[in-house]
Amino acid sequence: MPDTIVLSPTPVRDLSPFFSPRSIAVVGASRKEGSVGHALVRNLIYGGYTGVIYPINPKAKGIQGIPCFPDLSAIGDPPDLVVVVVPAPFVERVVLQAADMGTRNVLVISAGFKEIGGEGLERENRLRSIARDNGVSILGPNCLGLINTDPTISMNATFGRDIPPHGTLGLISQSGALCAALLDYAKGRGIGFSQFVSFGNKCDVDEVDLLRSIAADPNTRAIMMYVEDVGSGPRFLEAAHEITHGPNPKPILVIKSGRTAEGAAAAASHTGSLAGSDQLYDALMTQAGAFRVETVAQLFDLAEIFTDPLLPAGKKTAIITNAGGPGIMATDACIRHGLELAKFRDYTVKSLQFQMPTVGSIKNPVDVIGDARHDRYRAALDAVTADDQVDQVLVIVTPQTMTDVTEIAHVIGETKEFCNKPMAACLMGLVDVSVGVDLLQKKYAVPTFAFPENAMRSMAAKTRFGQWVRSTVRGYHAFDVDKQGVVDLFDRELAAGRHNLIELKALEALQHYGFPTVRYQLATTADEAVAAAAELGYPVVMKISGPKILHKTDVGGVKLDLRDEAAVRTAYTTMLDSVRRGMGEDVEIWGVIIQQMLAPGKEVILGVTRDERFGPMLMCGLGGIYAETFRDVSFRLAPIRENVAREMIQSLRSVKLLEGVRGEPPSDIDAVAECLLRVSQFVTEHPRIAEMDINPLLVYPRGKGAMVADARIILRHESAGQEQAHA
Amino acid sequence: MPDTIVLSPTPVRDLSPFFSPRSIAVVGASRKEGSVGHALVRNLIYGGYTGVIYPINPKAKGIQGIPCFPDLSAIGDPPDLVVVVVPAPFVERVVLQAADMGTRNVLVISAGFKEIGGEGLERENRLRSIARDNGVSILGPNCLGLINTDPTISMNATFGRDIPPHGTLGLISQSGALCAALLDYAKGRGIGFSQFVSFGNKCDVDEVDLLRSIAADPNTRAIMMYVEDVGSGPRFLEAAHEITHGPNPKPILVIKSGRTAEGAAAAASHTGSLAGSDQLYDALMTQAGAFRVETVAQLFDLAEIFTDPLLPAGKKTAIITNAGGPGIMATDACIRHGLELAKFRDYTVKSLQFQMPTVGSIKNPVDVIGDARHDRYRAALDAVTADDQVDQVLVIVTPQTMTDVTEIAHVIGETKEFCNKPMAACLMGLVDVSVGVDLLQKKYAVPTFAFPENAMRSMAAKTRFGQWVRSTVRGYHAFDVDKQGVVDLFDRELAAGRHNLIELKALEALQHYGFPTVRYQLATTADEAVAAAAELGYPVVMKISGPKILHKTDVGGVKLDLRDEAAVRTAYTTMLDSVRRGMGEDVEIWGVIIQQMLAPGKEVILGVTRDERFGPMLMCGLGGIYAETFRDVSFRLAPIRENVAREMIQSLRSVKLLEGVRGEPPSDIDAVAECLLRVSQFVTEHPRIAEMDINPLLVYPRGKGAMVADARIILRHESAGQEQAHA
Repeated sequence: MPDTIVLSPTPVRDLSPFFSPRSIAVVGASRKEGSVGHALVRNLIYGGYTGVIYPINPKAKGIQGIPCFPDLSAIGDPPDLVVVVVPAPFVERVVLQAADMGTRNVLVISAGFKEIGGEGLERENRLRSIARDNGVSILGPNCLGLINTDPTISMNATFGRDIPPHGTLGLISQSGALCAALLDYAKGRGIGFSQFVSFGNKCDVDEVDLLRSIAADPNTRAIMMYVEDVGSGPRFLEAAHEITHGPNPKPILVIKSGRTAEGAAAAASHTGSLAGSDQLYDALMTQAGAFRVETVAQLFDLAEIFTDPLLPAGKKTAIITNAGGPGIMATDACIRHGLELAKFRDYTVKSLQFQMPTVGSIKNPVDVIGDARHDRYRAALDAVTADDQVDQVLVIVTPQTMTDVTEIAHVIGETKEFCNKPMAACLMGLVDVSVGVDLLQKKYAVPTFAFPENAMRSMAAKTRFGQWVRSTVRGYHAFDVDKQGVVDLFDRELAAGRHNLIELKALEALQHYGFPTVRYQLATTADEAVAAAAELGYPVVMKISGPKILHKTDVGGVKLDLRDEAAVRTAYTTMLDSVRRGMGEDVEIWGVIIQQMLAPGKEVILGVTRDERFGPMLMCGLGGIYAETFRDVSFRLAPIRENVAREMIQSLRSVKLLEGVRGEPPSDIDAVAECLLRVSQFVTEHPRIAEMDINPLLVYPRGKGAMVADARIILRHESAGQEQAHA
Repeated sequence: MPDTIVLSPTPVRDLSPFFSPRSIAVVGASRKEGSVGHALVRNLIYGGYTGVIYPINPKAKGIQGIPCFPDLSAIGDPPDLVVVVVPAPFVERVVLQAADMGTRNVLVISAGFKEIGGEGLERENRLRSIARDNGVSILGPNCLGLINTDPTISMNATFGRDIPPHGTLGLISQSGALCAALLDYAKGRGIGFSQFVSFGNKCDVDEVDLLRSIAADPNTRAIMMYVEDVGSGPRFLEAAHEITHGPNPKPILVIKSGRTAEGAAAAASHTGSLAGSDQLYDALMTQAGAFRVETVAQLFDLAEIFTDPLLPAGKKTAIITNAGGPGIMATDACIRHGLELAKFRDYTVKSLQFQMPTVGSIKNPVDVIGDARHDRYRAALDAVTADDQVDQVLVIVTPQTMTDVTEIAHVIGETKEFCNKPMAACLMGLVDVSVGVDLLQKKYAVPTFAFPENAMRSMAAKTRFGQWVRSTVRGYHAFDVDKQGVVDLFDRELAAGRHNLIELKALEALQHYGFPTVRYQLATTADEAVAAAAELGYPVVMKISGPKILHKTDVGGVKLDLRDEAAVRTAYTTMLDSVRRGMGEDVEIWGVIIQQMLAPGKEVILGVTRDERFGPMLMCGLGGIYAETFRDVSFRLAPIRENVAREMIQSLRSVKLLEGVRGEPPSDIDAVAECLLRVSQFVTEHPRIAEMDINPLLVYPRGKGAMVADARIILRHESAGQEQAHA
């Protein structure tokens, strides 16, 4: 038995011809100003593209001074990239022609596909088939195009209005219009891009292919994504985890729009009903180490902080300010976002005491007060950045009468160049301070913000990214289990037409996987019941068992806390009578389960739901009202790495109850984590499981373990052979 | 007995001479460029002040062309306003001189007071005395000054760098530096101000005086505040409630910085320990109808939406967009912030069907698609604004190839002028769209945002403000109570040196105020105990009672669920023995409380804590872990209006448990609300109460009421005569 699960890696597509083609043909190039075919050629030319452009247009001699070709075949050699802007009905023909010539990369700008439904959808399906059958990669259709600002390529293959400046930000967007707006906003904020791609309907190349490709670009330091849906959760997770936690980690900043709870209503299990698709996306991003943000403004704040790749060593943050109010606001934000105010060493305090005016504050935040000029900022920065108790520094400058903003910006920039600690600047205001902002951003690459809260929130995100990057990646633990036992059990149940495994059968499956389960025996006579109770030890619980008896309590099929032989014997008879009265004389009864009466413990729910895009999703939460009423549950894609089980539990608000409140001893959280890992292995090795609940898992004080008191497994209705193929 | 409590109104100060003086003397005016005394005179002149300026400087003939006066007395007539910029040690003399001349309003810009501690603090205390003794109003010291952009005054009495454009936003700030930064940021966003004041150390005129004054200004439509502390919670509440809910309601947007939990540790009661000062500020702002925001960016977003005073009639919001992605983002934000997507009438759908391209969406959001020009926007706007199911409209414009942003801006502005519904625009990007943004903001006063989320969040805030403005203001209900009974009880307890009233005494006080309390009797012999139990009805609870016995359970002083005479008789003897063993033979025992055993109910905690700045604060929360572990409690200043009790309960996350989950019947929330109103009256009429807890209040199913099971009242240590004076 191996002790770790090995996942088969997904093949990575080489998309470099899209981003760095030596030659580009534009099919549908046009002389008509305002047309997409014209804008594309213009952008390639004025963008300074370093390769060769072939405009294809049978009716024109030349476009913007470049000779035209009547047809793709007229070029001779196949171009590295074919860009298609002809009307939708003609796209397929062009792609086939490109494939015939030997071109392997086609960018389809044209709209009129899936997004219009009906014949457009059929057209898109045909396009996808053409891609697969001919070994062609298609980006699009219905997209804005792509840009690579690397000076050796300098390619703008979009029909947008503008060419973004060269920078370190990669952008991947499902919406072309949003892309255009983001470019415009970035221009206003002075943010430059490395590569930039709008992927439209993603009939072939998708967001994960592009993510990998952009992450491999050496010019790109951070990746911005706008997505409306992720095609495959596991593929995204694998790629994003490699990017954020690989040898050259890069942050991924995501806006995922469309926050709905589709599909939750249709779920059969408790776990399924708690899984809104939006929560699954949250879980996916957390697990991948990506930052999910709510607003475009936040997206740009994060992009700004990551323009400087240096990560802080820890949470200890110093603030230098020339005004009290913004210093307080920064302090509030520091604490609120989980950072800590650095406590200065004595030597720092002495140095500040010596150099700062007496009315300023030499504690953190350091208040250099309103009349500070650049020399006083420099003294404070020198002292604070030299302190080994400081991991990062925020410098706040408010424009007051004496404030020499430009000189102060130089001081901040110069300090950043020699101190090896991340710094951020907050130059409050937009107009008076704009020269300083420009200097800091362009000359010194110091992330600069208009407000202390935005600066601090972004610094906190970068700090979390630092922790994530430094954290040890654990593998997927494989417990020694009886996998075949479960395969056989599922085969038998499915053969008998049973998809819904409850109690006895569910517990049996879990026992094969080493879960601690409540002890029980099935009795079919009163004598057997008494013997079983004697073996398990009093008190016991009795429950009726039969394939159709779902609501046991309603028909008198449950008796708790039976304390002696007489009670068990009486209960056996009355229970059978009562169930037959309730459900009819011919109800199928397998017998009566005699089960040890468990000591009360904290109730935890573990579960699995299976989502079309995400595959199996693990859930945990506290029982009773916490999961159900307050929806305080956490999700992760299965399989989970060893460290993730504890993270799932810790991310619950109600974890406080497991940690022990009001004088209670802490619960055995390790035992819960182990059960989660076992569920992860169980569901990964048995794709026939559609959904399952362990409810409740009773958790005892630390060191006393946990116990599965009841469980339910729902198998898929697909062919039973599937499991063999997957396993 | 009156059935409403009448609060005595606070006198309102007339600060108009500060904002609209006909003449201003600047004491400390200077010829030296870069000095505060120079900047002030320059700003008055270049700001176009319409009154008369008297620079006072004994050494200069004139400053910036205006003749100087050697001394205040040299002017002759007293100026309406004296601005003081001389060094701190000379300020008192100048203020006295101004008072002698008959000037009643002095603005002290000079620093060197409370903010530097030590002698500065003493200097400030003397300044305050001078103000009071001479009937002079002092604004400052240590502030930036004030501005009134009304064209008939046009006064800039600050030493800032810039003069803000005329607009409709009033600003009150405790931090001068932040003020300057806000002005600069506002300039960048094209936001204008009506009045603007930095109040510094507020030695005399404070934030509430200024709030009332600015609210009375007809040019001001919304008020922005930055405060680090509020001097008096009740005064702020009274003023803010009048402003936000008066005949001419204006929104108040507040940043309160300094989010700490000072003082919570020192509290004696459960309620006290749950009251972080920050939660009290949240409660204060909610109760006052003010918007508390976290960041300056949010502050300006709200300022932007309130530049148009028209309030939406309801939550039904329509979105018109030329791009799918931003439309989805707007929809997400719409739902997240509690608005609703409008459902169009049939005639609207038909009109859109007729006029929109077939590939667009005619549902809400209406997608006019990427090639839309202003004519298509106009058709969509005409149809949507005419629909009576639409309360407000957000128009999104992304700059695409065909987009005529400027023309579209005109269409939006023109539509807004004839349709009587609030509109907001989102022009995505900063550069390409800037002409359109300018047009919308300046020509048409349409609130305009860069991102759909910010637009929608702001629209949601305005919608809440509309609901607040339309909501009925309820009075303060006065129940018919025995106030004198409580006064006498408190007198007796305090005379005996007892400040801590528990069980018997606390319940007795509550009974005077008509609370439903558990029935009980005090027994001093076993026979009395048996007689009491018989009268109350079995089962009963027995508890030892004595002034020093706080931890009853630890010494065997509590017995539950006693079901017959024998049990009561035995319990009586064993309890006395056990308590004497535990606490010593000579422990003072009043007897044993025989109490009816209450049916189990939902446990609620009601309480009061008293804060220096806020006065008595009511609290409610659910018992057990909800209040204590999850800190799920709500606070309001007492007294509360009738409708506020229910709001307090509804604002709890755990209110779901009272509303009934998992098939339970809903609890009697009305009974809880009534108890809260009684607590409000109780604590308002008895200022000797320092803190109190009702814990638990047992709440039964709807219609079955609630019952106080235990309570505790802590009286203040001040002189007992105080209550008579207040009452």
